[in-house]
Amino acid sequence: MTKRTQVRSNILAMEGYTPGEQPRDDGFIKLNTNENPYPPSPRVLDAIRQALTGDRLRKYPDPVGLLFRQTAARVLNVDPDGILIGNGSDDILTIITRTFVPEGGLVVSPTPSYLLYRTLAELQGARFETVPYLPEWTLPSPWPHPRADLTFVANPNSPSGTVVAIAALERFAGALDGPLVLDEAYVDFADNHGLELASRSNVVVTRSLSKSYALAGIRFGFAVSTPGVVRELMKVKDSYNCDVLSLVAATAALEDENYLRETRDRILATRRHLTLRLAQLGFEVVPSQANFVWSRRKDRLVKPIYEELKLRKILVRWMDYPGYGDGLRISVGTDADIARLLEQLATIL
Amino acid sequence: MTKRTQVRSNILAMEGYTPGEQPRDDGFIKLNTNENPYPPSPRVLDAIRQALTGDRLRKYPDPVGLLFRQTAARVLNVDPDGILIGNGSDDILTIITRTFVPEGGLVVSPTPSYLLYRTLAELQGARFETVPYLPEWTLPSPWPHPRADLTFVANPNSPSGTVVAIAALERFAGALDGPLVLDEAYVDFADNHGLELASRSNVVVTRSLSKSYALAGIRFGFAVSTPGVVRELMKVKDSYNCDVLSLVAATAALEDENYLRETRDRILATRRHLTLRLAQLGFEVVPSQANFVWSRRKDRLVKPIYEELKLRKILVRWMDYPGYGDGLRISVGTDADIARLLEQLATIL
Repeated sequence: MTKRTQVRSNILAMEGYTPGEQPRDDGFIKLNTNENPYPPSPRVLDAIRQALTGDRLRKYPDPVGLLFRQTAARVLNVDPDGILIGNGSDDILTIITRTFVPEGGLVVSPTPSYLLYRTLAELQGARFETVPYLPEWTLPSPWPHPRADLTFVANPNSPSGTVVAIAALERFAGALDGPLVLDEAYVDFADNHGLELASRSNVVVTRSLSKSYALAGIRFGFAVSTPGVVRELMKVKDSYNCDVLSLVAATAALEDENYLRETRDRILATRRHLTLRLAQLGFEVVPSQANFVWSRRKDRLVKPIYEELKLRKILVRWMDYPGYGDGLRISVGTDADIARLLEQLATIL
Repeated sequence: MTKRTQVRSNILAMEGYTPGEQPRDDGFIKLNTNENPYPPSPRVLDAIRQALTGDRLRKYPDPVGLLFRQTAARVLNVDPDGILIGNGSDDILTIITRTFVPEGGLVVSPTPSYLLYRTLAELQGARFETVPYLPEWTLPSPWPHPRADLTFVANPNSPSGTVVAIAALERFAGALDGPLVLDEAYVDFADNHGLELASRSNVVVTRSLSKSYALAGIRFGFAVSTPGVVRELMKVKDSYNCDVLSLVAATAALEDENYLRETRDRILATRRHLTLRLAQLGFEVVPSQANFVWSRRKDRLVKPIYEELKLRKILVRWMDYPGYGDGLRISVGTDADIARLLEQLATIL
């Protein structure tokens, strides 16, 4: 860097977020980034093909995504004016951070959790503090940072797949003197959701279409909060943050509720089987309410297992958290993917 | 807002950027947001259809857009490591602002120009200063803010459609003690481009596929700078800011150089005709190197003309700049669109 480049010091000091590996080689069984093993609803493909006719591509998309918001409002039973559209849920989390967190501010989340929260704080030039989950994956009370500029709670949490009960989250939101993001990227795989908390003026619930709707390639997420909060978030988003194809894809995906239920049920059945078999292989497995399973061992290091699997063309995610330790986060694939994984694990162990 | 929402004061104070109107009613002749009147290359549609097969949608896209960068590097004769991919050129401008501008920093651009630059500064909690173009649409020298944290120059400029000569821009970049964004959203309609300036460590050149490639609906833009600067910008972008369909669309669009040339030539021919006829109707028209024409009048207000046209289902952009005045920015449509516009203008005047 010469003196004239003048990149901000917080950016220069950062490493940058490293997403899960996306091998260009198609030969891998990918169980590392929580993609859905099943394709998106056929209605999504029809909607995209339909949008390729006429002059949709050459024109700007609807900046507020009215049709998507009306559809999501109906399906989820929320106010359409309380919905914000985003270019993936990461875009939504970025918008929220920029809306609430000043330079030098404070961002907090429990740990271990989604590593991007730290990156978002660093990009904003803010401090980031973590609070360890209690052993049963509940939140400590009293919470040590009630006045943070922004608090993130992923529910279900990654990498654990655990949930904090909605009633406990409601008490938590009430005890905070600042905004809370309830990151529900994985909630369609859980028993309950926290959308009713979005009517509180200090709660923003975020959703992703990457996992349960099998649309990671499309980039679409959304937030639900009060219309007053969404009005502020709208100022921060890029005007045309969602393209016309992702808008029609997301709308079609939400409309096909049966397809969501069917693929979800298959994934939950595979998750039960995977959890049971991992335990039989000597892993400590937390019961998961997400589309992945967090697995640790007392008897040996897990990083070599991750490496052995990779050599055998199976990618899982090895994660290591300071002060907590490491583990393998294994996405729930098809039954065939998981059978192959378990077979290889048995050989390796 | 209750006290617990705690939106940042700079956001609360903002109005938010208002993009050009996107009527939901299809009956309008849209000459207000500089969309291309011709469809994108047929190769783009083929590439998107192709990407709908297989499991591209359910998997995350390539976070760095390697294939696009290799293609753009070849077509534009630049280093692939000096290319940053973005979800539209607005995403690119946001990333650049967040990389260089601290809270309380200074962002500068000539005026009148693209109104988003002010919004980007406000979102970052920075000050924004403008410097009037000289009467011949050149930049004053000495420039009053050589140490700004970021300087934006749109070239061709909007709303004027004028260009600053590349040699003058090179001197300008050399005299700045801070980074310069050369916003080339409209450059494919101009006689020259400034890509060679991207090899300077304080220049980032930005491009959009919305205009010349007729892909406003797809959201794709990119930046060209040194690999060192792009490494920093990469830390700031969302990991998966570009979806799989926009990546294949953008790659196919850049590959079809003949199609770009043909549609560009048609637009330039229509621009010549429109410029001539507007002058005959008594407008003061600046010779344009973009896909729009900036038109003012000495004899009467232009806002009523905009309103009359809207009643007749023709949308142009009325723009008013403090200290400069107003005018109509008219996108170059098809010959039929422009014939209809000119016919209605003759009736109104």
